Amino acid sequence: MITAESIWQDISAIREKVPLVHSITNYVAMNNTANALLALGASPVMAHAENEVEDMLDIAGALVINIGTLSDPWIRAMKLAIEKAKTSGVPTVFDPVGAGATGLRNNAIHVLFPSGPPTIIRGNASEINAAAKSAATTRGVDSTESSESALQSAKRLIDTYGSTVCISGAIDYILDGETTLKVHNGHQLMPKVTGLGCTASVLCAAFAAVNSSPLRAAAGAMATMGIAGELAAESVYCRGPGSFQVAFLDALYNLTFEDLRGKLRVE
Amino acid sequence: MITAESIWQDISAIREKVPLVHSITNYVAMNNTANALLALGASPVMAHAENEVEDMLDIAGALVINIGTLSDPWIRAMKLAIEKAKTSGVPTVFDPVGAGATGLRNNAIHVLFPSGPPTIIRGNASEINAAAKSAATTRGVDSTESSESALQSAKRLIDTYGSTVCISGAIDYILDGETTLKVHNGHQLMPKVTGLGCTASVLCAAFAAVNSSPLRAAAGAMATMGIAGELAAESVYCRGPGSFQVAFLDALYNLTFEDLRGKLRVE
Amino acid sequence: MITAESIWQDISAIREKVPLVHSITNYVAMNNTANALLALGASPVMAHAENEVEDMLDIAGALVINIGTLSDPWIRAMKLAIEKAKTSGVPTVFDPVGAGATGLRNNAIHVLFPSGPPTIIRGNASEINAAAKSAATTRGVDSTESSESALQSAKRLIDTYGSTVCISGAIDYILDGETTLKVHNGHQLMPKVTGLGCTASVLCAAFAAVNSSPLRAAAGAMATMGIAGELAAESVYCRGPGSFQVAFLDALYNLTFEDLRGKLRVE
Repeated sequence: MITAESIWQDISAIREKVPLVHSITNYVAMNNTANALLALGASPVMAHAENEVEDMLDIAGALVINIGTLSDPWIRAMKLAIEKAKTSGVPTVFDPVGAGATGLRNNAIHVLFPSGPPTIIRGNASEINAAAKSAATTRGVDSTESSESALQSAKRLIDTYGSTVCISGAIDYILDGETTLKVHNGHQLMPKVTGLGCTASVLCAAFAAVNSSPLRAAAGAMATMGIAGELAAESVYCRGPGSFQVAFLDALYNLTFEDLRGKLRVE
Repeated sequence: MITAESIWQDISAIREKVPLVHSITNYVAMNNTANALLALGASPVMAHAENEVEDMLDIAGALVINIGTLSDPWIRAMKLAIEKAKTSGVPTVFDPVGAGATGLRNNAIHVLFPSGPPTIIRGNASEINAAAKSAATTRGVDSTESSESALQSAKRLIDTYGSTVCISGAIDYILDGETTLKVHNGHQLMPKVTGLGCTASVLCAAFAAVNSSPLRAAAGAMATMGIAGELAAESVYCRGPGSFQVAFLDALYNLTFEDLRGKLRVE
Repeated sequence: MITAESIWQDISAIREKVPLVHSITNYVAMNNTANALLALGASPVMAHAENEVEDMLDIAGALVINIGTLSDPWIRAMKLAIEKAKTSGVPTVFDPVGAGATGLRNNAIHVLFPSGPPTIIRGNASEINAAAKSAATTRGVDSTESSESALQSAKRLIDTYGSTVCISGAIDYILDGETTLKVHNGHQLMPKVTGLGCTASVLCAAFAAVNSSPLRAAAGAMATMGIAGELAAESVYCRGPGSFQVAFLDALYNLTFEDLRGKLRVE
């Protein structure tokens, strides 16, 4: 059961243990996601060189792989990092940004998923569909498909890789093959800020660093994202996507148990 | 004729069609420019790998090439993207950041312009001069020359490449060989925020995705930039370049026809 | 002696001469650091290609080397830039981000320091210890060691390379072998924003471009950072790390002599 209490337990553990989250991610969202991890209470580090990523995993509590701005050297480093995470038992979150848009992204997924099955795969409906090799085509990084349509794709990914899948959207679906959770938190301004999907993925990683259940980690992260987004949007300081982004980081940093208890909408 | 009505028509088209703008741009401004495109109503995507850029252009409504942080692999990818855009009829905006400062940047321009003449070239006076192989030297990415001095350079670029040229500055000049427009909108805080020139270029691309006249697209984009900047600077929430940047995104997102009609200063 | 008057003299010189600061830095902090340089009054430029960095140094007033997101091509470019800066007399600030965390970072330091001894080395205690090849291990980019413990490491670096060393923390220590200064300015929210350490380093570079004493340049930069941070945290607009980051840029831009005189705490 996901409750305000259980999520608060994870947030408290993050703030206490300050897990190091190692991201190999896209250039666009690096700054956002580092700031979100700091605001939550975790510690971010970015490293992408083939001759560095394995060393970094020796001290990391979780790994994030995000294919938003790919190139061959980065794919090779991602593979090494994923393999090292697998042997070290470090949880891995995979964000298939723009999957389906290009052959490079699709091929990267085909190579990387088998190298070390992701603990959590988080993407929008189009990306989850593409990641599952469905016939879906992705249009950039915005989702053009409903979350419901991606549920079948998610189930195939779960069967093949044993991953927990999070399909983000107006409602976030988190599935592990046994349980399906729906998180209703969030705000319509969130897709108007670049890198908030990527931010959701790094929060999943921070939660996975302190909670051994990927389902609970992903659900807690998505609820925390959504509630921080609601708090930001409702604040008197929010007047559009610029000030929303600022207020989102403030809300994440100032988040209390009372906020969670008052706003959590999960089923 | 550029009017508030004609610019509003383009903004409405952007908000309705949500064109995908593919940028191969510098690391510094990626986040800014993605957020500005989202605030305007367009959809950003970044991809820079030689084995990906052509695929991405299959779904893009416009291409942005920005040489702010160059390297040889990126120049090769830019060339492929420009050639694909040319054959596909996708409008291309070229931002010659720091042209004149180094041989690498000058050589990149010499290689890339003939590969596919830019639909729109947008830079400050120094950059436009350097791009036209004048004797001008560029000092970093700030302009040290007046816009007027770059008008002759712009005309040479128009003659050679058939491009529309936008010389940005306190007054923005937009020329296509037949018509010269001057946009007086803008605010002195804008050069105090990194990447706002790059932001102007991606807005030009978004407008070019919905308006087949490069002159009108560039003028509309520059006026929109300038008016959003004025609204941001005039807001009670602006207290310096940090809060200006936030207020700029809010203003771009909240921009109305009345804002345009009340503030547009174009001749 | 470091006084409000001497720091104000440097800030005035930066605002008047607008020195160009060339950074080869990490992807995460590029945008932050460029904006901080603009807010202070300097001019930022980023260039990292082996076939460009030497040209850029011809027009640069200072060089920043930051190893936050390394790869071999960047290390090669850093070496070329450092060597060119050395022969050209351009002051160099070295930020050993995450030193000690991986072999790649340690090796980079071992190769780069002898190529051109840094004018100023600025890092947290863990990084300074690791840079001096002490037995310290760095955990990501946060410091886990006290500044005091790094003073011996700093002295070794000074003896070997003749550098001025800045150990940043709750108290910043600036040493050149003859004099040790302590800067007490700063705020606890600062480590909650990514890239503020990197920002301190680029401010050191801007000051070094106008002040031939590395000790005075580094102390002035650290005091300016800390005072801008205090002003930001004390402002009514600061409600967490998101709004702090915005208020910090505003404070840096609006900084007055009276602010310095009222808040400077250096010994």
